[in-house]
Amino acid sequence: LSTPSSVGDAGEHALIDLIRRRLPPAPSWIHVGVGDDAAVVEPARNTLDVFTTDALVEGVHFDRAFTPPEAIGHRALAVNLSDLAAMGATPRAALLSLVLPAHLLVSEVAGIIDGLLALAARHRVQVIGGNVTQTSGPIVIDVTAIGSLRRRQALTRAGARPGDEVWVSGWIGSAAAGLGALAHGDPAGIGLALEIPIAAYLTPEPRVRLGQLLGRNRAATACIDLSDGLADGLRQLAAASGIGMVVTGETIPIAPGARQWFTAQHADPVRAALRGGDDYELLFTVARRRRSRFASVRRLIGDLPVTRIGRVTDDGEARIEYAGGVESVGDGYEHFR
Amino acid sequence: LSTPSSVGDAGEHALIDLIRRRLPPAPSWIHVGVGDDAAVVEPARNTLDVFTTDALVEGVHFDRAFTPPEAIGHRALAVNLSDLAAMGATPRAALLSLVLPAHLLVSEVAGIIDGLLALAARHRVQVIGGNVTQTSGPIVIDVTAIGSLRRRQALTRAGARPGDEVWVSGWIGSAAAGLGALAHGDPAGIGLALEIPIAAYLTPEPRVRLGQLLGRNRAATACIDLSDGLADGLRQLAAASGIGMVVTGETIPIAPGARQWFTAQHADPVRAALRGGDDYELLFTVARRRRSRFASVRRLIGDLPVTRIGRVTDDGEARIEYAGGVESVGDGYEHFR
Repeated sequence: LSTPSSVGDAGEHALIDLIRRRLPPAPSWIHVGVGDDAAVVEPARNTLDVFTTDALVEGVHFDRAFTPPEAIGHRALAVNLSDLAAMGATPRAALLSLVLPAHLLVSEVAGIIDGLLALAARHRVQVIGGNVTQTSGPIVIDVTAIGSLRRRQALTRAGARPGDEVWVSGWIGSAAAGLGALAHGDPAGIGLALEIPIAAYLTPEPRVRLGQLLGRNRAATACIDLSDGLADGLRQLAAASGIGMVVTGETIPIAPGARQWFTAQHADPVRAALRGGDDYELLFTVARRRRSRFASVRRLIGDLPVTRIGRVTDDGEARIEYAGGVESVGDGYEHFR
Repeated sequence: LSTPSSVGDAGEHALIDLIRRRLPPAPSWIHVGVGDDAAVVEPARNTLDVFTTDALVEGVHFDRAFTPPEAIGHRALAVNLSDLAAMGATPRAALLSLVLPAHLLVSEVAGIIDGLLALAARHRVQVIGGNVTQTSGPIVIDVTAIGSLRRRQALTRAGARPGDEVWVSGWIGSAAAGLGALAHGDPAGIGLALEIPIAAYLTPEPRVRLGQLLGRNRAATACIDLSDGLADGLRQLAAASGIGMVVTGETIPIAPGARQWFTAQHADPVRAALRGGDDYELLFTVARRRRSRFASVRRLIGDLPVTRIGRVTDDGEARIEYAGGVESVGDGYEHFR
């Protein structure tokens, strides 16, 4: 008689109905959407398909104690849109695989879906299918994102060449500081400056527009998103392109609130920002001869800051220059480590 | 110095390397494969894209006590290829999301990958991306399968009309009997007849060829795969098409070993077969005026049996006729129930 309160009370079919009721009407390029064995989609004209998948696991990627359901849903889609952005792709559709414990409240599932669909709507992403499964363990939200791009506009990790400039979007280390502040509370005297890092952690903004512009203008030689930290991004880009990189520590853009937080934790802000994950900013390289193309991109991206932090070298290593010398960038976040 | 034995010892990068080393060379239609932020794929010419995602959860969909790693990998892909088959699509590619506990052995991960890739090779499916994540809970293997089909050849669930014949491929209830035999052991006197049901459970064969032929010849009016049992399939097809169905109980094809198993459990074989999940056969409807098209399909599918089990009605319910009367088909498997 009353609304079922837990996933176990509601059942699989009721959960699927809950999701379907929240979906906007399907556009005409979706021939078969949610509710059949598979989705059937008209490809975008004269483009290549782009696919990525990434899972969020409760206790590993988020803690329900301080992550609202809407933020969990937002992040589950954002990490995938960030991967599409790093390829220069335009997002189109997503598949949603929910692995849920029976004790989870239906209202929390609704919140997760609402957070995901709000971000989807802003980027015109259609949820075209998925599945709901039970588990005896933590929540797993696995999203597959589908995008498109034109031939020769893919931003791979492999095109950086010695002499290219190294750029990064937004602010680095904010999500790590925000996560720290959420997990450990706000120490006395720091106050409101943590709101921006906390928002950076809870609701990261995938840099879809920047990625599209870099790809369309062929302004970048290589690109990666910073899911596992700037240090990891620098190493991955260097390895994939077969080059080295040197970054000037003091040029790394660290937001004031994040800098305050790291300092309050007696951590060096630059090293903490390098190591911290979950920023979902774009790290990319620009050839000197493409500077004018990149200038056009900068005029079109609006308020999003982009910062030059270093240059590509030919020595095969990713290094950082501090006032005191040069050292390896170190490791980023790696699962099982 | 020795090979790492657990996932936690090996780390994420080593696991990704293990998977990449097992992949066959990428064909030219994969512009960017495993190892970048996302995969970039040339769409098949003059076709629509077809997408599906389905997760296997340890303890829910498989029990490691009696499911070898290779069978886990096989099933994770098979359930997705079965969804593509039910749309009439040709499978092309897959994304693989692995959520793994740190204590899992690397050799087990290798077995899972080998089982998945062996099935992928037989169906010319390329693994183009994925991710590896840790968990404190059970193994989750989430696969997204990507296929293609020509315009107007999609086999949806919605096209069945009163008077159509109801057909099913293969044998029904075998996987349920095989799972029962694996979980509870082989009772005395039944002997080797359980090998076929056990294989049906461990390594189900997705009916890709049958689905393609039904779609290309436009021989079927509606189609669904039997992941959650024949009863569930009949109800889903009836609901999606807005029709009813009546199935003759004694015509349901139950393999001899499965019939023996159900009888030994003091269960009515027909009711047990109706309720049992995991068969991954195709349930489809054929219009009388398309009988000759369907006859062509039957000539082309080789050894796979197809059996007519009933007819479509206009009364909105899915029912089964026994010698003693007519009753509702009942429920199939539903998560959280």
